[in-house]
Amino acid sequence: KVPALPPASGPRASVTLEADDGQWTRPSKTYDGIRFSGLDQINTTNVKQLRPAWTFSTSVLRGHEEAPLIVNNTMYLVTPFPNILYALDLTQPGAPVKWQYEPKPESAAQGVACCDVVNRGPAYDNGRIYYNTLDNHVVAVDANTGKEVWKTRVGDINMGETMTMAPLVVKGKVLVGNSGGEMGVRGWLKALDAGSGKVLWTAYTTGPDADVLIGPRFKPFYADHKGKDLGVSTWPGTTWKIGGGSVWGWLTYDPAANLVYYGAANPGPWNPGQRPGDNKWTSTIFARDPDTGEAVWAYQMSPHDLHDYDGVNESLLIDVPWKGTVRHALLHPDRNGYVYLMDRLTGEVLSAEPFVHITTTKGVDLKSGRLQYIEGMDAGIGKVTRDMCPAPPGGKDWQPSSFSPRTGLAYIPHQNLCYDAEGLEANYIAGTPYVGMNVKMKAGPGDPANHRGELTAWDPVNMRPAWKITESFPVWSGTLVTAGDVVFYGTMDGWFKAVDARNGQQLWQFKVSSGIIGQPVAYRGPDGKQYVAVVAGVGGWSGAIVAGGLDARDSTAALGFVAAMADLPQKTTKGGTLYVFSLP
Amino acid sequence: KVPALPPASGPRASVTLEADDGQWTRPSKTYDGIRFSGLDQINTTNVKQLRPAWTFSTSVLRGHEEAPLIVNNTMYLVTPFPNILYALDLTQPGAPVKWQYEPKPESAAQGVACCDVVNRGPAYDNGRIYYNTLDNHVVAVDANTGKEVWKTRVGDINMGETMTMAPLVVKGKVLVGNSGGEMGVRGWLKALDAGSGKVLWTAYTTGPDADVLIGPRFKPFYADHKGKDLGVSTWPGTTWKIGGGSVWGWLTYDPAANLVYYGAANPGPWNPGQRPGDNKWTSTIFARDPDTGEAVWAYQMSPHDLHDYDGVNESLLIDVPWKGTVRHALLHPDRNGYVYLMDRLTGEVLSAEPFVHITTTKGVDLKSGRLQYIEGMDAGIGKVTRDMCPAPPGGKDWQPSSFSPRTGLAYIPHQNLCYDAEGLEANYIAGTPYVGMNVKMKAGPGDPANHRGELTAWDPVNMRPAWKITESFPVWSGTLVTAGDVVFYGTMDGWFKAVDARNGQQLWQFKVSSGIIGQPVAYRGPDGKQYVAVVAGVGGWSGAIVAGGLDARDSTAALGFVAAMADLPQKTTKGGTLYVFSLP
Ligand SMILES: O=C(O)c1cc(C(=O)O)c2c(n1)C(=O)C(=O)c1cc(C(=O)O)[nH]c1-2
Ligand SMILES: O=C(O)c1cc(C(=O)O)c2c(n1)C(=O)C(=O)c1cc(C(=O)O)[nH]c1-2
Repeated sequence: KVPALPPASGPRASVTLEADDGQWTRPSKTYDGIRFSGLDQINTTNVKQLRPAWTFSTSVLRGHEEAPLIVNNTMYLVTPFPNILYALDLTQPGAPVKWQYEPKPESAAQGVACCDVVNRGPAYDNGRIYYNTLDNHVVAVDANTGKEVWKTRVGDINMGETMTMAPLVVKGKVLVGNSGGEMGVRGWLKALDAGSGKVLWTAYTTGPDADVLIGPRFKPFYADHKGKDLGVSTWPGTTWKIGGGSVWGWLTYDPAANLVYYGAANPGPWNPGQRPGDNKWTSTIFARDPDTGEAVWAYQMSPHDLHDYDGVNESLLIDVPWKGTVRHALLHPDRNGYVYLMDRLTGEVLSAEPFVHITTTKGVDLKSGRLQYIEGMDAGIGKVTRDMCPAPPGGKDWQPSSFSPRTGLAYIPHQNLCYDAEGLEANYIAGTPYVGMNVKMKAGPGDPANHRGELTAWDPVNMRPAWKITESFPVWSGTLVTAGDVVFYGTMDGWFKAVDARNGQQLWQFKVSSGIIGQPVAYRGPDGKQYVAVVAGVGGWSGAIVAGGLDARDSTAALGFVAAMADLPQKTTKGGTLYVFSLP
Repeated sequence: KVPALPPASGPRASVTLEADDGQWTRPSKTYDGIRFSGLDQINTTNVKQLRPAWTFSTSVLRGHEEAPLIVNNTMYLVTPFPNILYALDLTQPGAPVKWQYEPKPESAAQGVACCDVVNRGPAYDNGRIYYNTLDNHVVAVDANTGKEVWKTRVGDINMGETMTMAPLVVKGKVLVGNSGGEMGVRGWLKALDAGSGKVLWTAYTTGPDADVLIGPRFKPFYADHKGKDLGVSTWPGTTWKIGGGSVWGWLTYDPAANLVYYGAANPGPWNPGQRPGDNKWTSTIFARDPDTGEAVWAYQMSPHDLHDYDGVNESLLIDVPWKGTVRHALLHPDRNGYVYLMDRLTGEVLSAEPFVHITTTKGVDLKSGRLQYIEGMDAGIGKVTRDMCPAPPGGKDWQPSSFSPRTGLAYIPHQNLCYDAEGLEANYIAGTPYVGMNVKMKAGPGDPANHRGELTAWDPVNMRPAWKITESFPVWSGTLVTAGDVVFYGTMDGWFKAVDARNGQQLWQFKVSSGIIGQPVAYRGPDGKQYVAVVAGVGGWSGAIVAGGLDARDSTAALGFVAAMADLPQKTTKGGTLYVFSLP
């Protein structure tokens, strides 16, 4: 059932668009993170003729979350562990491999990653490809020759750190963060000099202001974000040192404000009884000056996070007509189930409306900015609490949304999951899981077999869904929206789909070789034609049951995700393959 | 350069065709092994519109040689080790998995296989799927439910045995053979009762007549094939017990004559000095009664085989106008470089003409039936002999040919390789390589970068190629020919191609995800449309450099094949994916 969208004549969210050069130089394409392609050859009328133009095997069986990049008629693809970087020559028939770069990460890193051995993609800047390896190296590779320019180790697998996120390169700085919130790491964002690979600054998520790079320029909007060393005082003792807040998600950048935006992950361990306090600055969005790393504002979505409502999700930078003016805003569909619309210059929450079924909280108080928890809806030690929604992966996880300035809608891929859980005492041992909770996930409201996922088209001005599509499995792929008014996304059971951006009507689908959790992109080929590319290859946290061959009978496996995905192995098989589609 | 074929008005080879039911129940489709599809929806005019209809990942990265089967609107696919059997439901969009059967073969079998851990496909018969696992089990699986019906172990990995071949089911008997010619096994063909899995008879390749099932009905055509216990007397001492002659290739069946045909493999070790004599019955075609296993005739293509000119290649059963009459013939493109046309009732060689460049022999004497070796063109101990052609994989290897009764031509996929070698003393240790030769392969005559493979359309009546296509890499896939006069084949660098069966003109190609060494098939879908399917996934002996990640600098790796394939890793990546193509 697809509700019709009235022709959007009223006020709409928008962005300042530049002409599309047909390239795709970073996973989100543009700094504002909207994943909008200006190409319109493929449109709502002809998309039904779309068909694979060529395909490529990545040689890797685990979950493929990466976005392929397209620069100077070359496609760049980075695989999950062992993080091979392929350069494919788009000027030749069938796009043969130009070169491949193998960083040979340490095998032990695979055992440290929480949620499959994924990689979310590389970033292109000024003749180089930058990306992170699972074993905590940032590498710079010459985009023409495939030769390594530098390689810098920034983390330690023995401390539970890994790296899965895609760097953002801003003003000659490569911004990267660590993973390991489930292993008692201390989260950080680092800036490396793009030329040399030298670390220029490090902004920790927890700890004293000096480490968090909170100084005189820091002006949070809300009162309870003000005060000295909150990254220490909101934790018992020295637990902030192993308190998580890793930085494994998305960064966006506003060049006019010269601010980067990103979210820090959940506090650790999950068992909240071990960390009374707000646990700042976990589950928090930071706005920082990329030159110095200084925090300009911060906003904690989920203080004292009870549910792994990690804050790393994407922030799309859009302009929104708001009470008679236009606000330079940030749209952040958070794991806790609310879509936050915030003033991106001040950190003020303009609205926070639910996009999924929520039983754990009853809203966000716009005065104080505080999330309103519901009493008793959290897992105590030795007590099973049921029907908490959303589940730990949240209303949505890392899978990135897109936004079309043509429709004014954001296309949010996400899940519909709830959970039961029981707290456990967690003991910290460096480099091992530090979670303290037994979790069993399950489908949210609706038909459990056919409604574990949704694609929601969100209207930021009216603060409500314009339309929704339900999917059997969590929609764990990114979305892409084009000037042809087509939204592309993939399903975990292996369908790559095109829907009408205006009303969600399905226009086309193709069955790829494995479930899709990758990020679709669009580009103009050397022949002037529009192509759409996506990497298939099921896995990630949600697909661990297939990619890791887990036993469906062990319902707490994969931190409880297996319980909700027991039927996935009947629906798809693992294996990484790039699909490139075009019109005939 | 494609020479035009004059409209074939003269006499032509043929077969008796039955109406095509649109299924594909064994790798060669029909008992005569011609791999001809009677479907003609896809033809030389419209094939250029062919495009993938759906795809499926096998979850396995090694070489995929298997043919998919199509029975009762279900597709059956068996993977390389670990030999998973998938049933895909063709009546549902995207052909989801109906069930999968996992035999869980012993991991150690992988180290015993000579030439990648491949499987050439299952066979369907009477409601069951039969196939071999790498660790020497024959399994029968209920085609509807995926439940194992029986599982019989017929060989021993500790003795160097593995199984890679596709069974042939004839009159309620499942005919299977072993691999391990490079490990000092003793080759055999066994018949198992299709109902119970009980072994009904075993026909060894070497040893006393009683073991070879040579008895009163045995009437070979040539004098030197007559005599008692030649399987013992043509070997020094008891070396026949470890003399190879495995049965890892193709069987065909003539119901009128009630004879099965198959080739036994090369003698071991490769170093010929260790086994003076004809080494019967290695490199030999047998005609046997499937009811009892009794040999009716035999013909040894390469007596005292000097070059691993293993005799397992396919024998296509065709009828050929010959000197005023029609002969019930068998067309056998052998590894030694000659296409044999034989009377399939008597074992008489009607013609044996070269289809590749040959420097090791100067022809087959049709009087005596004997291959004429050229003096000095073999590898002695401590002496390097150069430019021997064809190389050990032969003029062609296991990759099966097809035949069209419409054109009267056989479509032979093959290689153009020569080699240098030096003999070494081989010591027999059970379950370990027993070869005794250092081999380096290289391209045969022609441009070495662009001509290591060929597709030859062979005219059996005129005993010459009608046309040839050259390919950069060995053509290691099977061929398929259809009533639409289209020949399909794949290349090791990942192109699936359609050419005109009449003249070899290329009509269409598609770049799949990995090099193709599988067997293309055609079928009619539940929607009445014609589909063409092939599994991509480079590997096998020729592709071991990619599938096994071998070092290109070690030129004797993969028994010398790596030397000729050093550039393959730049051209393709590994990974098994099924492609199903149709017209829009
Ligand atoms: O706290 C962390 O450091 C961390 C890291 C990762 C990761 O690096 O993939 C995930 C998560 N947390 C996480 O909470 C989560 O839901 C998640 C899903 C996935 C995935 O790839 O599907 N990774 C991660
Ligand atoms: O002698 C044997 O038992 C034996 C077995 C196999 C096999 O089982 O794959 C091959 C060969 N020999 C062989 O000679 C050969 O050329 C070959 C190629 C391949 C392949 O899969 O690409 N297998 C084999």
